[in-house]
Amino acid sequence: MEPATHQTWRRSFYYLHGAFILPKRFQSGQAEHAAVSASPRVRPRLLVSRLYQPSNLRDVGQESRLAGQMTCKSQRLMQQAGLIHPSNPGCYYYLPAAVRSMEKLIKVIDQEMHEIGGQKLDMPSLCSADLWKASERWDLMGKELFRLKDRHRADYCLGPTHEEAVTTLVAHQTTLSYKQLPLLLYQITRKFRDEPKPRFGLLRGREFYMKDMYSFDVSEEAANQTYESVCEAYSRLFARLSLRCVQVQADTGNIGGTLSHEFQLPADIGEDHLLLCGSCSFSANAETLSSGRTDCPQCNTGSLVESKGIEVGHTFYLGKKYSHIFKATFSSAQNKPATAEMGCYGLGVTRILAAAIEVMSTEEEIRWPGLIAPYQVCVLPPKKGSRVDKAAVFAEELVQTLGEAVPHLRGEVVLDDRTHMTIGKRLKDANKLGYPYVIVVGQVALEENPKIEVVCQQTGETMFLSKDGLLDLLGRVETV
Amino acid sequence: MEPATHQTWRRSFYYLHGAFILPKRFQSGQAEHAAVSASPRVRPRLLVSRLYQPSNLRDVGQESRLAGQMTCKSQRLMQQAGLIHPSNPGCYYYLPAAVRSMEKLIKVIDQEMHEIGGQKLDMPSLCSADLWKASERWDLMGKELFRLKDRHRADYCLGPTHEEAVTTLVAHQTTLSYKQLPLLLYQITRKFRDEPKPRFGLLRGREFYMKDMYSFDVSEEAANQTYESVCEAYSRLFARLSLRCVQVQADTGNIGGTLSHEFQLPADIGEDHLLLCGSCSFSANAETLSSGRTDCPQCNTGSLVESKGIEVGHTFYLGKKYSHIFKATFSSAQNKPATAEMGCYGLGVTRILAAAIEVMSTEEEIRWPGLIAPYQVCVLPPKKGSRVDKAAVFAEELVQTLGEAVPHLRGEVVLDDRTHMTIGKRLKDANKLGYPYVIVVGQVALEENPKIEVVCQQTGETMFLSKDGLLDLLGRVETV
Ligand SMILES: [Zn+2]
Ligand SMILES: [Zn+2]
Repeated sequence: MEPATHQTWRRSFYYLHGAFILPKRFQSGQAEHAAVSASPRVRPRLLVSRLYQPSNLRDVGQESRLAGQMTCKSQRLMQQAGLIHPSNPGCYYYLPAAVRSMEKLIKVIDQEMHEIGGQKLDMPSLCSADLWKASERWDLMGKELFRLKDRHRADYCLGPTHEEAVTTLVAHQTTLSYKQLPLLLYQITRKFRDEPKPRFGLLRGREFYMKDMYSFDVSEEAANQTYESVCEAYSRLFARLSLRCVQVQADTGNIGGTLSHEFQLPADIGEDHLLLCGSCSFSANAETLSSGRTDCPQCNTGSLVESKGIEVGHTFYLGKKYSHIFKATFSSAQNKPATAEMGCYGLGVTRILAAAIEVMSTEEEIRWPGLIAPYQVCVLPPKKGSRVDKAAVFAEELVQTLGEAVPHLRGEVVLDDRTHMTIGKRLKDANKLGYPYVIVVGQVALEENPKIEVVCQQTGETMFLSKDGLLDLLGRVETV
Repeated sequence: MEPATHQTWRRSFYYLHGAFILPKRFQSGQAEHAAVSASPRVRPRLLVSRLYQPSNLRDVGQESRLAGQMTCKSQRLMQQAGLIHPSNPGCYYYLPAAVRSMEKLIKVIDQEMHEIGGQKLDMPSLCSADLWKASERWDLMGKELFRLKDRHRADYCLGPTHEEAVTTLVAHQTTLSYKQLPLLLYQITRKFRDEPKPRFGLLRGREFYMKDMYSFDVSEEAANQTYESVCEAYSRLFARLSLRCVQVQADTGNIGGTLSHEFQLPADIGEDHLLLCGSCSFSANAETLSSGRTDCPQCNTGSLVESKGIEVGHTFYLGKKYSHIFKATFSSAQNKPATAEMGCYGLGVTRILAAAIEVMSTEEEIRWPGLIAPYQVCVLPPKKGSRVDKAAVFAEELVQTLGEAVPHLRGEVVLDDRTHMTIGKRLKDANKLGYPYVIVVGQVALEENPKIEVVCQQTGETMFLSKDGLLDLLGRVETV
């Protein structure tokens, strides 16, 4: 007995004569009043014809709009598929399918941060100049900071990162005890950076989503352990997304601190130059090594191979740089005030989304980390008026059965109802969008032992399964 | 068989010798390396001593910091309880418990918007001046707009609302067909408004979360039906939150349009003056009626009673105001281009949170809409060294049993491990924070037929239940 599941089920789903129905006005084009809090409720079915994915895979006008800009595969594919739409330079509309994918990615990140004791908060975007002057980053950041004045002429910037803000917050808690450390606070919010040349879609924007975590520890040793545990969480995250990620030594930049790593996805479009040892695990951003170096400083035997990478994560050990300035102290085991040791850890949320598409897709077809695909399954009924038209009923029933038998695929199955188009054309669209599982209901569904054609995008395999076989396959799909 | 649940379970939970365990470094103060992707994983237990709720209910320093500002009950309670912390004027840190509550509220809103066909997107905060000049709101909004220039001296504002942006987006889709309407697009994002006098905590801030939805319809009639369905969704939302909400006629302000309603929570601190008819359903913002009017314009018999209200939602029928300016057209059934009829619909997300606390709480104790309380259950084991010390084991087992037997309460049960404090003091804290269910494990848990003391905050009732009775009670708790 699963009460939650059961309740949700009752609240969100409704079967009428054994069939999912759309709210009436969506079915007939005519609206009718739904009584307030009328129960049982009707759940809108997910129909491709109704999903807001403008360009609808056909509008090629956007391609010409991209001409002359520095673009890349993920940007092109995401715009063509109606995942994003350009707004101001470096700013994008995230369209519904992209929002679904991003929300899934955020869930995975939340899980991994929760596992290592992270607690989620949310800090203001408007950051007072005073704070940033105290850390001297008001001047250091130069033109990368978006700056503004409020109606009282007070100076603010739009936070690209929140070391000052979080350290001030922790400093305000006068009762913080060593027993409460390590304290790991993080947020997943929109960040701002006035890039000189925004480019490559979500890979280098001026407005983007980032997860930034900040840690407070009793000692350097403890801070290093926290640093390790965050790096391990990052590795687990990328493993769950099936993304090959390299952790490389990095420059500490203007954040400050003494130890830093980048998490890089090897990719040709990447703007970072990495040096990886062929013999040991050594890897570094080329910036951190004297130029032209080809021997490995760790094993001394291997030679360094160059690769390009997209930076998707960055960790910094900060020491007391910010905690000293803002007086973030705790009372020690000896009941004395002591300054906290800090670290900070970023993940580019929208960048991971684009980078995943960049490294997994072909030139023409999007491929997703399965866990964060906008929808898991697309069902294609036959073309209207075709020889196998009758299989349409089978497709409808299949969608219904999936909703009943595989609860974790609720809201994950879309029906491509554009039955004025051939199955071939719609299959091509589905392949382009990269639904992990595309189900074609055609001739073989009408045979005595009906079979269902399933295209698994991850493997490229096409299988013909019985209904039970399909339910078994989809029952094992991991969702978040 | 519930595969999703089962998978999540396997991934997130781990029982060692039948007991929840904390990650080792949180238990002993000493860290040790966890192997990357080590499975099975350990799930941190929720201990009150480790939850980041600064002020810890004891720091009264904040109260003096509030002196001299215009404050109200919800602001005071939220700051005292470590739910929010003031930053710049009108800007707040949302601390972990508030983030949990807000994320639940967002889930409920998502469900209700999804039910009426809403699709979620996410638009840039940086809005180009050009767009706002086209609608003439660049000048109209005056000092309420936060304005800034980028490094190329281009003008932007921080979006307080997104009529211009969304209409432009829809206008860019040259292939929009009448078959795709109504189109309901919404986002839940941070908004900015340079209030002259930010006050009352989250009730009137300069940075806040808002749900803004925009509808596109084929005709005025269809737009009115959409308008109705959104109003009904809002009513359902407030009903699910157990909040009494009045829908009143409102002024259309500078958004434009001809029809508008506000959703108001009656409250003394409210800044809106409402007039409600005693005889019929008529209700209006006093602004919309000639001043001094006391007779009801709808039934002509009732007299109007004044009330104050907190505006938590606002709906506008916009007609073609924006779609005309930005050329948001669709191809009609006659295959002719036609201009879309629009509506826009706002919900103050952070404001609902604060308003709910404002209207439900006592002067000293927070009360939540059950559905969005940060945690559902707090378990209080006896004081260490007390006569009933042995009951501590019972409390531990209870937390474990709840996790096993009531899956929808996973992550919702906290253990108040501050056992150096008396049960009375901790009960007082728990009552202040308003956990819907507070479980006191004391003397009666050690009797031959063990009983568990349960305080239900919603009803104020205290019950003594058997374990089965408790599981039955908590199994019926609605969560989101
Ligand atoms: Zn080497
Ligand atoms: Zn009346």
